[in-house]
Amino acid sequence: MGKVALIERLTNGLGCQGDDCAVIGTTVVNTQTLVEGVDFDMMYTPLKHLGYKALAIAISNIAAMNGSPRQALVSIAVSNRYSVEALDEFYAGLRICSDRYGVQIVGGETSTSRAGMVVTVTAIGEVKKERLTWRHGAKHNDLICCSGDLGSAYAGLLVLEREKVTYQANPNFQPDLDGYDYVLERFLKPEPRMDIIKKLADSNVVPTAMTDISRGLADSLLHICRASRCGCEVYEERLPIDYQTSRVCSEMSKNMLPVSCALNGGEDYELLFTVVQSDYDKIKTMDGIHIIGYITEEGMPAVMVTPQNTTITLRAQAFQGLDE
Amino acid sequence: MGKVALIERLTNGLGCQGDDCAVIGTTVVNTQTLVEGVDFDMMYTPLKHLGYKALAIAISNIAAMNGSPRQALVSIAVSNRYSVEALDEFYAGLRICSDRYGVQIVGGETSTSRAGMVVTVTAIGEVKKERLTWRHGAKHNDLICCSGDLGSAYAGLLVLEREKVTYQANPNFQPDLDGYDYVLERFLKPEPRMDIIKKLADSNVVPTAMTDISRGLADSLLHICRASRCGCEVYEERLPIDYQTSRVCSEMSKNMLPVSCALNGGEDYELLFTVVQSDYDKIKTMDGIHIIGYITEEGMPAVMVTPQNTTITLRAQAFQGLDE
Repeated sequence: MGKVALIERLTNGLGCQGDDCAVIGTTVVNTQTLVEGVDFDMMYTPLKHLGYKALAIAISNIAAMNGSPRQALVSIAVSNRYSVEALDEFYAGLRICSDRYGVQIVGGETSTSRAGMVVTVTAIGEVKKERLTWRHGAKHNDLICCSGDLGSAYAGLLVLEREKVTYQANPNFQPDLDGYDYVLERFLKPEPRMDIIKKLADSNVVPTAMTDISRGLADSLLHICRASRCGCEVYEERLPIDYQTSRVCSEMSKNMLPVSCALNGGEDYELLFTVVQSDYDKIKTMDGIHIIGYITEEGMPAVMVTPQNTTITLRAQAFQGLDE
Repeated sequence: MGKVALIERLTNGLGCQGDDCAVIGTTVVNTQTLVEGVDFDMMYTPLKHLGYKALAIAISNIAAMNGSPRQALVSIAVSNRYSVEALDEFYAGLRICSDRYGVQIVGGETSTSRAGMVVTVTAIGEVKKERLTWRHGAKHNDLICCSGDLGSAYAGLLVLEREKVTYQANPNFQPDLDGYDYVLERFLKPEPRMDIIKKLADSNVVPTAMTDISRGLADSLLHICRASRCGCEVYEERLPIDYQTSRVCSEMSKNMLPVSCALNGGEDYELLFTVVQSDYDKIKTMDGIHIIGYITEEGMPAVMVTPQNTTITLRAQAFQGLDE
């Protein structure tokens, strides 16, 4: 049984809304839990970055509803192998992120964990009723847009995993991370795209549907198509992929295609959204936003069209987490 | 370095308020994380009870602010040794609690854990500005009140731990839990005291300070005294202790005093609050509320007076958790 089916079965009758945030009036809330060994590997995750990232992810979910983050609660459970200094680092990173995005840390608790570290962040935001954006509003012929570039966080993870394996084989080995700064930062210190939310507001554009890209473009597209009861067509040559991402892929294996990282690599935390065609003129001039395809009718599949005009049906097949 | 000092050091500059909930206007929010092996032992915690309890604890923190619970987000991280049926049980218990207390489960996520189960509940409530109750409002001569009875949840834990040890020594042993129903239910399925919150509202009583009793009466009294800059005097003979709690203590050891369970045993989730003396007539007729002492001046210690008129200084010395 897949994860989506499992969650649907278990939460049946609980009234869960299954979007990026729960919506209570004009308040949007989401809780993110990061578990050591599953969501992060302590071997290559500086605690300062972890503190930053834990909050950044929760803010990204606020952004995905077209909201602005306001408060957060941060709870950590740690085993006693963590020193106070290590935890200081975690909170320092958290503080940098909360300062940058104007989020007030209003509560949380610290407790004991028997095995590793568990971080839980609850982010609370606000959104004007008329700007609230769900996954379910996409309509036939809407343009599909995404921010930033895709697959780079996964490329960063690939580099870190490679260096880890090398180090484990030979502890005298010095990891060489030169030239990978962009993809590493994308993985270790993602930025929620509040700048895009601001641009959309400044231009008076309200997306018809939106989500963030946390488990690959394919997964996010399928979420929007399922919620909006529609299909989609995106163009491979339109997908924004950074040069460094392509280089990492080619270093790893000739079978590792950059487009696969974009479709199935996780943790980009870019925004995926749809707009009505009449917003085309506004969108096309916005820096950092790419129009990658359009929404098709109900009953149509979600597909990617290659430069050779081949049509590939998209499946949610996010690259597996650390231990899956 | 103690836990309180640690949290104070780490959250310095984050603007945490250190009360039972974070307060945002008339909204109160808290997040509770339960970690397997630390906060619960899977050997004697039915998952249905765990689902109930996880939400009940978060609601209790809403009650402690004099608020009413409205919504909750529930996230669980589980390793794959949990079956779908087991998780069904968890959500069934959760649903019973959310129905009973009128809480809508509006979101959450299910993720993978490498080791054991981690449950995170964020509860959101509302409170009228003029009824909001912090820990810091107690004043000299205020009466100290508590609801229900104390130490019984800890007595339940003692019984379960005893049966576990016996079972581990001899797996053919059938745990005998007859006659312990009250203390077991107190531990496994605590009830947030929303009924007390309602009584206080119906009688137009606003406590000057309030918190819930999650780590023993002594700990909660000290929280109020520290936050309110005052001392307190409570009377041993006034502490409400159930007959079954006393019986369990006497079975365990002649050194295990019921009053120690009340002062230092955790997880009662009763309410501890202070009221002005002029509310005495209203309070004394309320079922389930006990007046146990009064607030003394700043600079005075927090003490318990025994029937022999001996004064014992209270210390936060909650009985240790499962692995501490």
